[in-house]
Amino acid sequence: MPVNLPPLPDLLSVAGVRCAAVAAGVRKPGRRDLVLFELAANATVAAMFTRNRFRAAPVQVAERHLAAAAPRYLLVNTGNANAGTGTAGITAALACCAAVADIGGVDIEAVLPYSTGVIGEPLPADRITAGLPAVFAALAENGWNDAAYGIMTTDTAPKGGSVRGNPWVLTGISKGAGMIRPDMATMLAFLATDTAITQPVLDHLLRDAVEHSFNRITVDGDTSTNDAVTLVATGAALGEPISDPDSPEGRAFGTALTALCIDLAHAIVRDGEGATRFVTVRIEGAKSSEEALSAAYAIAHSPLVKTALFAGDPNWGRLLAAIGRAGIDDLDVSGVSLFLDDVCIAEEGGVAPGYQEADGARVMAQPEILIRADLGRGTVTETVWTTDLSYDYVKINAEYRS
Amino acid sequence: MPVNLPPLPDLLSVAGVRCAAVAAGVRKPGRRDLVLFELAANATVAAMFTRNRFRAAPVQVAERHLAAAAPRYLLVNTGNANAGTGTAGITAALACCAAVADIGGVDIEAVLPYSTGVIGEPLPADRITAGLPAVFAALAENGWNDAAYGIMTTDTAPKGGSVRGNPWVLTGISKGAGMIRPDMATMLAFLATDTAITQPVLDHLLRDAVEHSFNRITVDGDTSTNDAVTLVATGAALGEPISDPDSPEGRAFGTALTALCIDLAHAIVRDGEGATRFVTVRIEGAKSSEEALSAAYAIAHSPLVKTALFAGDPNWGRLLAAIGRAGIDDLDVSGVSLFLDDVCIAEEGGVAPGYQEADGARVMAQPEILIRADLGRGTVTETVWTTDLSYDYVKINAEYRS
Repeated sequence: MPVNLPPLPDLLSVAGVRCAAVAAGVRKPGRRDLVLFELAANATVAAMFTRNRFRAAPVQVAERHLAAAAPRYLLVNTGNANAGTGTAGITAALACCAAVADIGGVDIEAVLPYSTGVIGEPLPADRITAGLPAVFAALAENGWNDAAYGIMTTDTAPKGGSVRGNPWVLTGISKGAGMIRPDMATMLAFLATDTAITQPVLDHLLRDAVEHSFNRITVDGDTSTNDAVTLVATGAALGEPISDPDSPEGRAFGTALTALCIDLAHAIVRDGEGATRFVTVRIEGAKSSEEALSAAYAIAHSPLVKTALFAGDPNWGRLLAAIGRAGIDDLDVSGVSLFLDDVCIAEEGGVAPGYQEADGARVMAQPEILIRADLGRGTVTETVWTTDLSYDYVKINAEYRS
Repeated sequence: MPVNLPPLPDLLSVAGVRCAAVAAGVRKPGRRDLVLFELAANATVAAMFTRNRFRAAPVQVAERHLAAAAPRYLLVNTGNANAGTGTAGITAALACCAAVADIGGVDIEAVLPYSTGVIGEPLPADRITAGLPAVFAALAENGWNDAAYGIMTTDTAPKGGSVRGNPWVLTGISKGAGMIRPDMATMLAFLATDTAITQPVLDHLLRDAVEHSFNRITVDGDTSTNDAVTLVATGAALGEPISDPDSPEGRAFGTALTALCIDLAHAIVRDGEGATRFVTVRIEGAKSSEEALSAAYAIAHSPLVKTALFAGDPNWGRLLAAIGRAGIDDLDVSGVSLFLDDVCIAEEGGVAPGYQEADGARVMAQPEILIRADLGRGTVTETVWTTDLSYDYVKINAEYRS
């Protein structure tokens, strides 16, 4: 059961984008597993891909195509990641792109492929191409909700959101539940706006938003081979193009984009494999962003902390131990304070005076928990989001062949 | 159930060392939880402690005492780690040392304290001091087997070994099952030999042995606040002191010491919390020890790899994904080969030609598994040892307040 994951709202259409999802039987019959986005001819597109050195075939092809031409189609399949498939995987991804290009009447480089699902099995390109006429026929401006369902894998619920700005709308969907860590994971996100944004500004805005959203979440510390987040600006709305991220229009859009990306990133954590808690880890008083993040991830990745969170155990010793091994060599532990929500549980290297275990237990019993540490040595704050580690995480990952 | 953990042998006495274990009721009655080692007056002692910045009170006191005087007594309690206890913890550790010094007729600096168990609760120094007359009375040269039982916490079985060299013996015991990672963990190890070894050589030999044994194991990636490994050379045996690690005598002893430390380290992994497999991860063909270790630990710490190991699933995609995120920026994935025991499962970025899933599944069904990756870019090899991640790991750590 996801933790406080809001239901999928009615996603707003974005002028200049049509999309659809159909069942192509990629891995299992009767499940929508093929999604197509069609973009207006003058759309600008920015994308970020996994930093894993083992990048799946579709990631390699998408990067190459993005550099070569303006994208007109984004083709997504679930059920098969087309990863660890060598040159045959590249050939299969290109075959899918060629078939889309053929039907759509565009160059092959105008098609970006995305795959997610099982690693190491040959992509059934024939099933995907056989499903293309149906997905082309279904393309519609109001297809976003279908697309949100179509990109799901181990997700238990679809994830998406829309923002209405002035004079634009912004809609995004995401998927992902395991292999989640900073620098993105088995995660796909597609966002589109009908405003016009010049290419360098679109790239800048996306990088900035991703850095504070998708790059700040972790479920299990693993990074997948297939992650990608893609932002489209169609320019179909009224108004001047946004050509300066620091203009009032640029800031307004950037703020909305970051907020939506944070919502989509949170949705992934809330639906994290086996998650029973949504945990915010905030490190304050750090000397640098780097040391704040390393303390935050030491906590967020610690199996001992995560099992204590599952148990609802205010085990501050495990939290202190995680901070202590975060690689901050000159950390003065007597200056560290530790809080669960607003309850101070530890300071000066030991339990806080007046701390009552009942207060900590009350915080830990909640589905949403804030772990906050003040390192007492600087002014930098960083936040990451994670889950607990439950029996179900083990069950899901021992049984599912990802 | 530990994985192929050999039963505790009859440990050899070491002339110049007497030890004993008694039940002092530190946390629970009726359990041997207080261990004392008495060392000959001319013994040399080397010790290494946790690198966690939150070092427990006994670690701080032991380091200070070790620098100040030749140790005559090592006092170990389980049931309470005396960690996260601030200045009161230091006071309690010193009170225990003072009581030992008083009975033993030595300076307080000649006593090194060790504690392991629950973090963050006050050390009941009065119960420990009340148990001292009994543990002093029980001191015996053949007390090692009792001591191996006495230092256990979540361990399901005692861990120890002896080697007979010429003209010396070497005996060691260890404890630890969770919070295990490189750079030592909730782990204690005590080793003693009756040969004479000069202080700098003893330090050198211990550091070298630990680097290739206790610093190469991981269960859950966590580092405890209380780890310590201590090596004693009493000089009671015949023969000249070992004063050069590169002399034939120095090499012979060093080899035996490293081998025993590897056995004791393996014992900790075999008894890892919830472990159902003993897994060796060997990275070959690396450019440096650093990159080999980072690939090895990326595999050994990956919850996705560890749950696949629990399931007996030859999921090479998760192994490649772990190597791909190990931070080796210029890794050419097409040069990486991956083996389970001698079965080549992946090469050139994809599944190996001729690989049959049944062959991988056969290897994965064993209680002991070798995961071997050749990065194909250098000549350095590094090995680490780890376990799988099972339901029982979650159960143990969600229920035990460590």
